[in-house]
Amino acid sequence: MNIHSARSEPDVRRQYYEKIGRHSLSPLWESLHSLVPKTPTTLAVPVLFNYREVMRPYLLEAGELISAEEAERRVLILENPGLVGQASITNTLYAGLQMVLPGEVAPTHRHSQTAIRFVLEGGGAYTAVDGEKTFMTPGDLVTTPGGTWHDHGNDSDEPIIWLDGLDIPLVRALDAGFAEAGEEQTQSESRPAGDSEARFASNMAPVDWQPDRPSSPIFNYTYEKSRDALMTVAANSQIDACHGHKMRYINPATGGAITPTIGAFLQQLPAGFETRSYRSTDATVFSVVEGTGESRVGDTTLRWQEKDVFVVPSWKNVEHRADRDAVLFSFSDRPVHEVLGLWLEERGEK
Amino acid sequence: MNIHSARSEPDVRRQYYEKIGRHSLSPLWESLHSLVPKTPTTLAVPVLFNYREVMRPYLLEAGELISAEEAERRVLILENPGLVGQASITNTLYAGLQMVLPGEVAPTHRHSQTAIRFVLEGGGAYTAVDGEKTFMTPGDLVTTPGGTWHDHGNDSDEPIIWLDGLDIPLVRALDAGFAEAGEEQTQSESRPAGDSEARFASNMAPVDWQPDRPSSPIFNYTYEKSRDALMTVAANSQIDACHGHKMRYINPATGGAITPTIGAFLQQLPAGFETRSYRSTDATVFSVVEGTGESRVGDTTLRWQEKDVFVVPSWKNVEHRADRDAVLFSFSDRPVHEVLGLWLEERGEK
Amino acid sequence: MNIHSARSEPDVRRQYYEKIGRHSLSPLWESLHSLVPKTPTTLAVPVLFNYREVMRPYLLEAGELISAEEAERRVLILENPGLVGQASITNTLYAGLQMVLPGEVAPTHRHSQTAIRFVLEGGGAYTAVDGEKTFMTPGDLVTTPGGTWHDHGNDSDEPIIWLDGLDIPLVRALDAGFAEAGEEQTQSESRPAGDSEARFASNMAPVDWQPDRPSSPIFNYTYEKSRDALMTVAANSQIDACHGHKMRYINPATGGAITPTIGAFLQQLPAGFETRSYRSTDATVFSVVEGTGESRVGDTTLRWQEKDVFVVPSWKNVEHRADRDAVLFSFSDRPVHEVLGLWLEERGEK
Amino acid sequence: MNIHSARSEPDVRRQYYEKIGRHSLSPLWESLHSLVPKTPTTLAVPVLFNYREVMRPYLLEAGELISAEEAERRVLILENPGLVGQASITNTLYAGLQMVLPGEVAPTHRHSQTAIRFVLEGGGAYTAVDGEKTFMTPGDLVTTPGGTWHDHGNDSDEPIIWLDGLDIPLVRALDAGFAEAGEEQTQSESRPAGDSEARFASNMAPVDWQPDRPSSPIFNYTYEKSRDALMTVAANSQIDACHGHKMRYINPATGGAITPTIGAFLQQLPAGFETRSYRSTDATVFSVVEGTGESRVGDTTLRWQEKDVFVVPSWKNVEHRADRDAVLFSFSDRPVHEVLGLWLEERGEK
Repeated sequence: MNIHSARSEPDVRRQYYEKIGRHSLSPLWESLHSLVPKTPTTLAVPVLFNYREVMRPYLLEAGELISAEEAERRVLILENPGLVGQASITNTLYAGLQMVLPGEVAPTHRHSQTAIRFVLEGGGAYTAVDGEKTFMTPGDLVTTPGGTWHDHGNDSDEPIIWLDGLDIPLVRALDAGFAEAGEEQTQSESRPAGDSEARFASNMAPVDWQPDRPSSPIFNYTYEKSRDALMTVAANSQIDACHGHKMRYINPATGGAITPTIGAFLQQLPAGFETRSYRSTDATVFSVVEGTGESRVGDTTLRWQEKDVFVVPSWKNVEHRADRDAVLFSFSDRPVHEVLGLWLEERGEK
Repeated sequence: MNIHSARSEPDVRRQYYEKIGRHSLSPLWESLHSLVPKTPTTLAVPVLFNYREVMRPYLLEAGELISAEEAERRVLILENPGLVGQASITNTLYAGLQMVLPGEVAPTHRHSQTAIRFVLEGGGAYTAVDGEKTFMTPGDLVTTPGGTWHDHGNDSDEPIIWLDGLDIPLVRALDAGFAEAGEEQTQSESRPAGDSEARFASNMAPVDWQPDRPSSPIFNYTYEKSRDALMTVAANSQIDACHGHKMRYINPATGGAITPTIGAFLQQLPAGFETRSYRSTDATVFSVVEGTGESRVGDTTLRWQEKDVFVVPSWKNVEHRADRDAVLFSFSDRPVHEVLGLWLEERGEK
Repeated sequence: MNIHSARSEPDVRRQYYEKIGRHSLSPLWESLHSLVPKTPTTLAVPVLFNYREVMRPYLLEAGELISAEEAERRVLILENPGLVGQASITNTLYAGLQMVLPGEVAPTHRHSQTAIRFVLEGGGAYTAVDGEKTFMTPGDLVTTPGGTWHDHGNDSDEPIIWLDGLDIPLVRALDAGFAEAGEEQTQSESRPAGDSEARFASNMAPVDWQPDRPSSPIFNYTYEKSRDALMTVAANSQIDACHGHKMRYINPATGGAITPTIGAFLQQLPAGFETRSYRSTDATVFSVVEGTGESRVGDTTLRWQEKDVFVVPSWKNVEHRADRDAVLFSFSDRPVHEVLGLWLEERGEK
Repeated sequence: MNIHSARSEPDVRRQYYEKIGRHSLSPLWESLHSLVPKTPTTLAVPVLFNYREVMRPYLLEAGELISAEEAERRVLILENPGLVGQASITNTLYAGLQMVLPGEVAPTHRHSQTAIRFVLEGGGAYTAVDGEKTFMTPGDLVTTPGGTWHDHGNDSDEPIIWLDGLDIPLVRALDAGFAEAGEEQTQSESRPAGDSEARFASNMAPVDWQPDRPSSPIFNYTYEKSRDALMTVAANSQIDACHGHKMRYINPATGGAITPTIGAFLQQLPAGFETRSYRSTDATVFSVVEGTGESRVGDTTLRWQEKDVFVVPSWKNVEHRADRDAVLFSFSDRPVHEVLGLWLEERGEK
């Protein structure tokens, strides 16, 4: 190769790239290693949303700024600073903080997107799914699976605030979303409150029942029950170096995750306990239920207290430390990774 | 065909049959319709075992006649009168009434056969499975899945009596049974009592848990919880014409039956309610938990009261009537029929 | 305990046993170890059915003795000498040798029992399942799953003889059998011959097809294709010490066995090869397709040649030796053992 | 509300939005209906890539411009004009046209992304997966499942050109991709060519084989076999108004799609046949194997001939018309939609 040709080669290629570009063709060899990276290269960043000083006051302000009727849903979107403009807290998940004031309703609608709700404060408000209500207490995990009619209302005398988690970015990536408003603001009650709990949350099911959707038939995993289970396990078991004591909520019709797109977890960290480094391909949103502490995520340290929300992106190492006995709720897209054969985890060395 | 050959044909055939019989061959055409019958032709018969006047007094007498140590298991086998000598209550199931007196133990062993225990009276005795105890209260359903080490003991001051259900005849039909005695009388406790309950019976599971056997990880379905669920469903739901209000116990790891060979059910019949006729291919053993009433099984009427045991053989029509609000526990081989594509049911006309 | 009571104790117990026996109760402690044996205790015995000198001539004689019309099915039952009167070749399986003469038909019927046919000689006869015919050539494995309408006919000019395998004893043990005669002798053809082969046997399926039964949608696994696969594997792979080269036929809709109750296998043993001892809980019926050799089953040595049938009962050790390159077809109840969590195997030491 | 406040309200809100925006919060009520749209709103557009006049000549030119060694993979990316800069042909799938010249190799690597290859021209080149080669002929569908080592080579004397389909955008959306270069350019052969075909593509499997990955164990679905099956079905069956005759390639270990992220299909359209309108949530890439015709996709008409590639985005109505008997290969993300409960289709009215 002489100097001349060495010089002109880039030009030849550039011209070729321009020419084929006009036909929507491009050379793989210029981008292979960014298209197929050595390890996950997420744009999402570790971030913490402070509840007491930031999220809560602003949400209350929204309560004055816009009526529930006008807002349809009075929700502040928690957006990952690495994913600006995408209404995403991780690559595949959306999170928002929703408030329903006494006397308000969030009207009936349904959509392909699956939602979970984790209650932060209040008591006495309800979510209705397919004609059945459940009353919501802090720490409860309520599911509104894709395709189900749902509405919310608050007949109590205090505001209710919860964290919403939805698979909006994932459904968008799949171009598979449908939505529909209900004919009525509020669904008429076809089954009494607590019916699902009795039917499905007691390790029994109606004799001829067959699941008609991939999500759990339980739509309220009450904190009372979940916390009891976690604390009993914590008292009885050897602690896991990476997780403390960690349980996953299950769909009793399959033993798998509560929904096909969002898995949910509850874990206990004793005061003073520091977890060993851990990472996995799913990206996780944490909500602090009890205690205070800090989590080191990649190179970022996030200090948390009750009701704060924080994010561990895909394949970022995380180490938690609890100052006081802590309980963390979390949700992630792990079920999607698992069912597609893409889930991977790595437990740090001692 | 002349008279002569007509007369001699049976002889010719008989001689042929004898000849081939010496080679273990036989003519299908002589038995086709009995081998492949039009409908199930069970030898098992409808039968009721009276608790108060028969089973209980005889079991107490056994307590005087033989020590637990000598008996290993102090159990009276409930044998179907149609299956004499087979120790079977239905074609595929065994049932027995077991008693453990205060201070006694039933020593550790394990076998391929799966057992369920339904507690009839007593309180404070325990079953230990794989190193974990559960305390047994009337109405509790305790499972000891095939292959698990188990022992029983009674540290309380009253006798405990329960109904055993095992798949002994089925495992015998499959020639697949192994058994082994434990090295110790009583297992050392590897996990505290209630551990399984916390881990698996609260719609959660340890985050990395994977089932290692086809049976449920829950080994005590307490009556308190099961009855509550049933009664709530009964209060809320339309009643089923054939079943009253009927639920099945589930394995939360699969949504299926609690064990691969034995399914279990709990149903409520309001006072005065008469069920419509019903039959199915599985054969069912009922244990009366609450109430009195009668069941017409084929042409036989069985009058029952609390703790009685009765049998509905395969494909026999059954109609129940409760005199007082009744709760019936039952178990059957339905999971086997279902997984092999052989289960069939028929709901009677009004 | 004094001498007197020691003497009388058996009498006391005997009286007690008689008394409770009248109420269909019996003492478990007298039979526990036979009910729950240490290892499988099958009554079935190792046995070989000679084709050339026994089965074939007797079957031809049957062709003279009884018309197809009168016989409905002209079949000699192969009965295990350990299971006299049960029409069983193993505890759960039935086997028979069926012949259809030129011009004859075996009329349409259906039953819950699942059948497989393994063709021994002939060519040009057919089996029709649910309105589709398949033509049968030696070595072909044809399935007629439980519940499907089927008939057989022979439009060729030579007799066809095949081995039938059915789950009759198992379905009897479950009391789950139904049977029905068709309205017509021979089904009208709703789909052309070979249709199932194209639809399901080419690693493709119609785009919206969903299986409607637990058995394979393929109903003829042709010997040409199966033998080719086996021989290629045999040429390429390391030989297994216990099995030679052994493959299982699969249901492409699940990856599992061809039917829920009967699994089928094809294995190659090179001339001179002796397998290491092996046993498993399923009981197996072998049909020799090619070659000669002998199998030691427990303490019995069975010498075999082409078309002979022999039996390896549950948990009996077997060692094969081929004199000439051999191909063995076999079927067993392994899928039942596996799905119920009861299957166990043991590979012998070198 | 007076004029003043009406005027200022937007300002108040804007200020509020700016304020909360600094904390990565934003108001859901301003974007709810775009985040949860009524129907899928894909950016991908219908598009056709012409083989003879565009793709092939440019690919040959690339063969002069860059060596295989330098390129690693000599591939032209087919980019959807609606997804500029994303190297995506649909929202979740990547497609490329790859050429390997005589004597060249594409060196060994592996990655989480799953690939399928559909051969357009050439013969005698190979793909090696996990140490086994398969030779590639036009119309063959070759899979290299996520995580498997693979390389390509061309020992023949003509170029080979194939269409690559990968789940690169989906794996990117999940942040779950890992990649690794092999230590050797070309894998050493651990199993002879054709081994997988014999083991898994004949409706049999090695007796003790268990799948160790969610993708099919078959890695070459040869056109000879697939076309035969399709043509037999086409000759025998009633035609489907929306699809002509359409089959899906299956994973014989599960009955499901060949890989968890990419499903593949082959369909026949007789000359003159016009399909009824059809749409589904999965987005599909078509490759014309035989024939000519046109497809109306939404408002766009695409005329196609052999080896052209065209795209039907999510939820766009498509109608095909064949001028000459046509065979279309296609692949899509349908398995992902199905497993997540998001797949929906709509068949047009007559």
